[in-house]
Amino acid sequence: MTLQLHDLNLRGFASDNYAGVHPEILDAIAAANEGHQIAYGEDVYTARLHEVFAEHFGAGVEVFPVFNGTGSNVVSLQSMIPRWGAVVCAKTAHINTDEAGAPERVAGIKLLPVETPDGKLTPELIDREAWGWGDEHRAQPLVVSITQTTELGTAYSVDEVKAIADHVHGLGMKLHMDGARISNAAATLGVPLRAFTRDAGVDVLGFGGTKNGMLYGEAVVVLNPEASDGLIYLRKLNMQLASKMRFISAQLIALLTDELWLRSASHANAMAARLRTALEEGVASGEISGVGFSQLTQANAVFATLPAGVADRLRGHFRFYDWDAARNEVRWMCSFDTTEADIDAFVAALKFELHA
Amino acid sequence: MTLQLHDLNLRGFASDNYAGVHPEILDAIAAANEGHQIAYGEDVYTARLHEVFAEHFGAGVEVFPVFNGTGSNVVSLQSMIPRWGAVVCAKTAHINTDEAGAPERVAGIKLLPVETPDGKLTPELIDREAWGWGDEHRAQPLVVSITQTTELGTAYSVDEVKAIADHVHGLGMKLHMDGARISNAAATLGVPLRAFTRDAGVDVLGFGGTKNGMLYGEAVVVLNPEASDGLIYLRKLNMQLASKMRFISAQLIALLTDELWLRSASHANAMAARLRTALEEGVASGEISGVGFSQLTQANAVFATLPAGVADRLRGHFRFYDWDAARNEVRWMCSFDTTEADIDAFVAALKFELHA
Amino acid sequence: MTLQLHDLNLRGFASDNYAGVHPEILDAIAAANEGHQIAYGEDVYTARLHEVFAEHFGAGVEVFPVFNGTGSNVVSLQSMIPRWGAVVCAKTAHINTDEAGAPERVAGIKLLPVETPDGKLTPELIDREAWGWGDEHRAQPLVVSITQTTELGTAYSVDEVKAIADHVHGLGMKLHMDGARISNAAATLGVPLRAFTRDAGVDVLGFGGTKNGMLYGEAVVVLNPEASDGLIYLRKLNMQLASKMRFISAQLIALLTDELWLRSASHANAMAARLRTALEEGVASGEISGVGFSQLTQANAVFATLPAGVADRLRGHFRFYDWDAARNEVRWMCSFDTTEADIDAFVAALKFELHA
Amino acid sequence: MTLQLHDLNLRGFASDNYAGVHPEILDAIAAANEGHQIAYGEDVYTARLHEVFAEHFGAGVEVFPVFNGTGSNVVSLQSMIPRWGAVVCAKTAHINTDEAGAPERVAGIKLLPVETPDGKLTPELIDREAWGWGDEHRAQPLVVSITQTTELGTAYSVDEVKAIADHVHGLGMKLHMDGARISNAAATLGVPLRAFTRDAGVDVLGFGGTKNGMLYGEAVVVLNPEASDGLIYLRKLNMQLASKMRFISAQLIALLTDELWLRSASHANAMAARLRTALEEGVASGEISGVGFSQLTQANAVFATLPAGVADRLRGHFRFYDWDAARNEVRWMCSFDTTEADIDAFVAALKFELHA
Repeated sequence: MTLQLHDLNLRGFASDNYAGVHPEILDAIAAANEGHQIAYGEDVYTARLHEVFAEHFGAGVEVFPVFNGTGSNVVSLQSMIPRWGAVVCAKTAHINTDEAGAPERVAGIKLLPVETPDGKLTPELIDREAWGWGDEHRAQPLVVSITQTTELGTAYSVDEVKAIADHVHGLGMKLHMDGARISNAAATLGVPLRAFTRDAGVDVLGFGGTKNGMLYGEAVVVLNPEASDGLIYLRKLNMQLASKMRFISAQLIALLTDELWLRSASHANAMAARLRTALEEGVASGEISGVGFSQLTQANAVFATLPAGVADRLRGHFRFYDWDAARNEVRWMCSFDTTEADIDAFVAALKFELHA
Repeated sequence: MTLQLHDLNLRGFASDNYAGVHPEILDAIAAANEGHQIAYGEDVYTARLHEVFAEHFGAGVEVFPVFNGTGSNVVSLQSMIPRWGAVVCAKTAHINTDEAGAPERVAGIKLLPVETPDGKLTPELIDREAWGWGDEHRAQPLVVSITQTTELGTAYSVDEVKAIADHVHGLGMKLHMDGARISNAAATLGVPLRAFTRDAGVDVLGFGGTKNGMLYGEAVVVLNPEASDGLIYLRKLNMQLASKMRFISAQLIALLTDELWLRSASHANAMAARLRTALEEGVASGEISGVGFSQLTQANAVFATLPAGVADRLRGHFRFYDWDAARNEVRWMCSFDTTEADIDAFVAALKFELHA
Repeated sequence: MTLQLHDLNLRGFASDNYAGVHPEILDAIAAANEGHQIAYGEDVYTARLHEVFAEHFGAGVEVFPVFNGTGSNVVSLQSMIPRWGAVVCAKTAHINTDEAGAPERVAGIKLLPVETPDGKLTPELIDREAWGWGDEHRAQPLVVSITQTTELGTAYSVDEVKAIADHVHGLGMKLHMDGARISNAAATLGVPLRAFTRDAGVDVLGFGGTKNGMLYGEAVVVLNPEASDGLIYLRKLNMQLASKMRFISAQLIALLTDELWLRSASHANAMAARLRTALEEGVASGEISGVGFSQLTQANAVFATLPAGVADRLRGHFRFYDWDAARNEVRWMCSFDTTEADIDAFVAALKFELHA
Repeated sequence: MTLQLHDLNLRGFASDNYAGVHPEILDAIAAANEGHQIAYGEDVYTARLHEVFAEHFGAGVEVFPVFNGTGSNVVSLQSMIPRWGAVVCAKTAHINTDEAGAPERVAGIKLLPVETPDGKLTPELIDREAWGWGDEHRAQPLVVSITQTTELGTAYSVDEVKAIADHVHGLGMKLHMDGARISNAAATLGVPLRAFTRDAGVDVLGFGGTKNGMLYGEAVVVLNPEASDGLIYLRKLNMQLASKMRFISAQLIALLTDELWLRSASHANAMAARLRTALEEGVASGEISGVGFSQLTQANAVFATLPAGVADRLRGHFRFYDWDAARNEVRWMCSFDTTEADIDAFVAALKFELHA
């Protein structure tokens, strides 16, 4: 039978997880295959994984491969707080909007969401919900969670993370970073991964793999071992322990080797920049009208507003999501496999539909 | 750099998930790669998957790919009972012994375990805990969960499943089957998958993939749609929804195509039978002494008792687990990639250590 | 020994649960004492309780006595939604701010809080979070919870509740009312209890007792039996089932007999009105300056703003709570046992401190 | 209206919570009434409560009043273990059989039940489930829970508790005691409360009130502060924090003053002894036949076996429960208000029905 069922020419800007797997990742899986390895993490790939993460984040970090981003967040947060703890986050945080209540239901964590203009918390915004310690009637705010890059395509600078970490630690709280797109952040900031994570004061990091070309798999990275407890048990009881873990570890090793993580993320970011630039040039030249930008394009996402009706017609060419349909705001995501031709075709299609 | 870190010659009998990935599975993943597909299950592979399962289980079944076996069990059981429901299971059931309390902690389900001699429930054994409906002080027993093949390597016959299903339904309860090794069961029973599942009265099935040569992934299969509710939501909130789902679906399609599932499971079973036969012949001929068998070998596991000290010495040759160290009981598992040479070398090593 | 340890002259405006027990309630407890009655609700008082509630709310309502308000809310909401459901509420709702995350942690319910000016939801405000049905990534908004009277001392009119109920039902959702101060609402609206609950479309009601002179105890009242499931089990597993239930039922019967509920609530409301009027008159006459009112006084609470420093000095006379210390906002609560002399002394003390 | 609805002459042996409230308890509630006291535990009665418990259990114990026994158990156990902990208990333990799964569902705790002949654990029985530390696949057994007196009416001796505590602590585990009937235990052992609790090595105790004549209320007593964390938060989030706490505290003070706890429990025990003695004398004299005793009568319960059909006829006179209907085993409970006349009438009724 033929194994390939899908149309290879189908391309889109809906999400970076519409893309497939980077060939170097597939090679790594194949190389880790055959023979017998101990299940559940006692294999040689997972052993090596710790060394690889230590190269990027410094000695003493602990790495726990998991299946997916929601699992990474739930397991991380649960390891950071007691049963009575709450987590301050942006209202747009993935944990608040797109995890079906898993943090509340599975982890038993109350979220304290804060409105932000750009998906980024600040010390001042954190203070809106970081209060009430010792009052048993209030879920105790003990962790702040930030997403890097944010769900709105923006990036915290190194200094911004440091300011948050200092503030959070000064309050006796801990700092979690959802790094589903951490590679895109490093690429846009032009600094090493540890500069805006461990060195900036992040305690526990979710290191994203799937959105950056892996088949599946993320890693919980404990940057400050004093900030996390029981991860080995929490991963298992939260159903995030892979039996054939060698294959997640092999993927993560491949991602972090020869800068695949950075090459892929830089490319995705560049494609978003190409898209934004083309549109801005069109606006400047008068060729494009009615298109606005609702967020900075600092990584691999472009948030734009379109004239009414255009988004639906444009989706006849390329799939993508409305962000806020009420104000005609859309989100366009680029991935490691987005091509310049994809961008150019998309810009052409947009121009066509704007004039249709 | 070299991607391959492990010793390909390392072989063992510890678990069927120490094995890697069947080459046909890897091919299927590669074939499903490239291009863009909608994430979270709206891809063409997941669409085809429903047809493939319908071929094996009949029209109307619903399939929900998940990451792993614990996830499959938790999501399945939660979809079958209200918040006040309890689940009757064998004391040796994986949900009771090896899931770190996930059913209780994550799903909020009280288990009502029953002692069994061979890992198999019967209507009589079920009745020990199936009582007390309407009494608000008792967690309400509303589901029975059986494992096929069992954690002790035994298999329910078609008639045994039917008898349980009839009894369970007669009590107003539902029947769940943990089919982590369902293919081994079909292989040993010599009947189609549906004969001892849907046709026998099972309501919801966990269809195992990882232990039978998949890289990762299982499937919750709703055989009786009236017995399950909200699976699409429960899978997500329980962190079992894969973004790049096309690749789990592609693996499951490959497994169920050209009888890969049956070839692999039959081979694993045959290797266990070869091991058991060789040992029994050794006992019969007097070449082997002190070795007993604590369970039937109906699938890919051999449970044996050894003279004191032999197990530890034998582990110098091949890795495997004690089952009940107090009585020198061990478990030897065969997998799709166990070879006749593996078995012969293992038997030779055992004979050597018995005489050492 | 002497049993009385406290200073009977200590009076305050901190909360309606700083007050003790109404003498008629104590009499009812004593009358229900002695002899043996079946525990856990099969007693004659609980049987009568159903009749008493039917007199107030109409035939067919179901009543489940519980221990406290948080328990009432958790049990009610859990009975109204599946595991994947979420609850839209005002950001100031007690379930969101003062229950230590019990709805999330114990009930597994994600709350979707909405900012309001006065603690009251409207159809428009509900729509801010009532969307996304069928999207498995979003906790499904299936219930709206309103508090009557609100945590800000305001009351929904009959028409306002009806408008919400119609809107909520039109969306396929259900309506819960936290009636911790439901008697104060009826007193201020001047209508029967059922007018703004069952007749207005509320599905499940938490009927408050403790804040209106009971020793302990509330009641979950199912006004629409199709909107709630499994309450008998949920009450028990959520630790809200009293063994000696006859005594909660006897208190509720006493409260609902001879209009004790209405007499007590009307008195508390009148005392708050007396306080507000006295202050407003002082402002009008120029005797009082710097005092503002941040909410309407529709029940037994007065929300006011004071000049900086006055609140702390005033607490030297009477205990009460800051509501929003940042803007010098305080809350003064009256209870069934607040006296006119209490009010007059409090007003005098405030005048004294304003001029100090 | 008349407040008294029940038949004062109705008497039974079904449960010690079928009884009402001891008059001294009602007096204490009335004495604590009137005036305003701070809610949620900052009142003078709760302050005094700590001194009263210190008199009985020694300095340094911490007391947390709660509503009921299930709440006491859930809150206590949750305070003693991390999210991955499990609790070893007798299969007949109230937490395992009569709390509707609250420990699993609400507290997220897996129970590891052990069969016992008499409801009492021993070091050997504990060892059946106390193993597997460090294995992430197994819920970690970190607490042992024993009930004193047991659900089968038996009592641990001081030495038996000490042996368990030493064993449990030697394993790095903690010891919880469900003391729903702790007063009956002290009465039967003839020792102070602390002799078989704090001095014997119990870490956290649930001190029972309701079954010994209180209206409602129990107390979590932390005997070893290092064994418990976060109780103030856990009590609130588990819906066990009473607003008008002064009244639970006043009851507990009354119970522990002038030996009301001991007088009431000794009386209940004596009534059970009177019942058992009368029956044994009847058997010895031949007047009674077919009646056996399935457990020792060490406190206020008699477990007996009756000829088929007798139990149902006897229930025509006095209400009581079957314990194990399959073998005609019944349970008869005595309470603080059981009279000698009750016992004599019951024995006469039994004799009548045995000969009917």
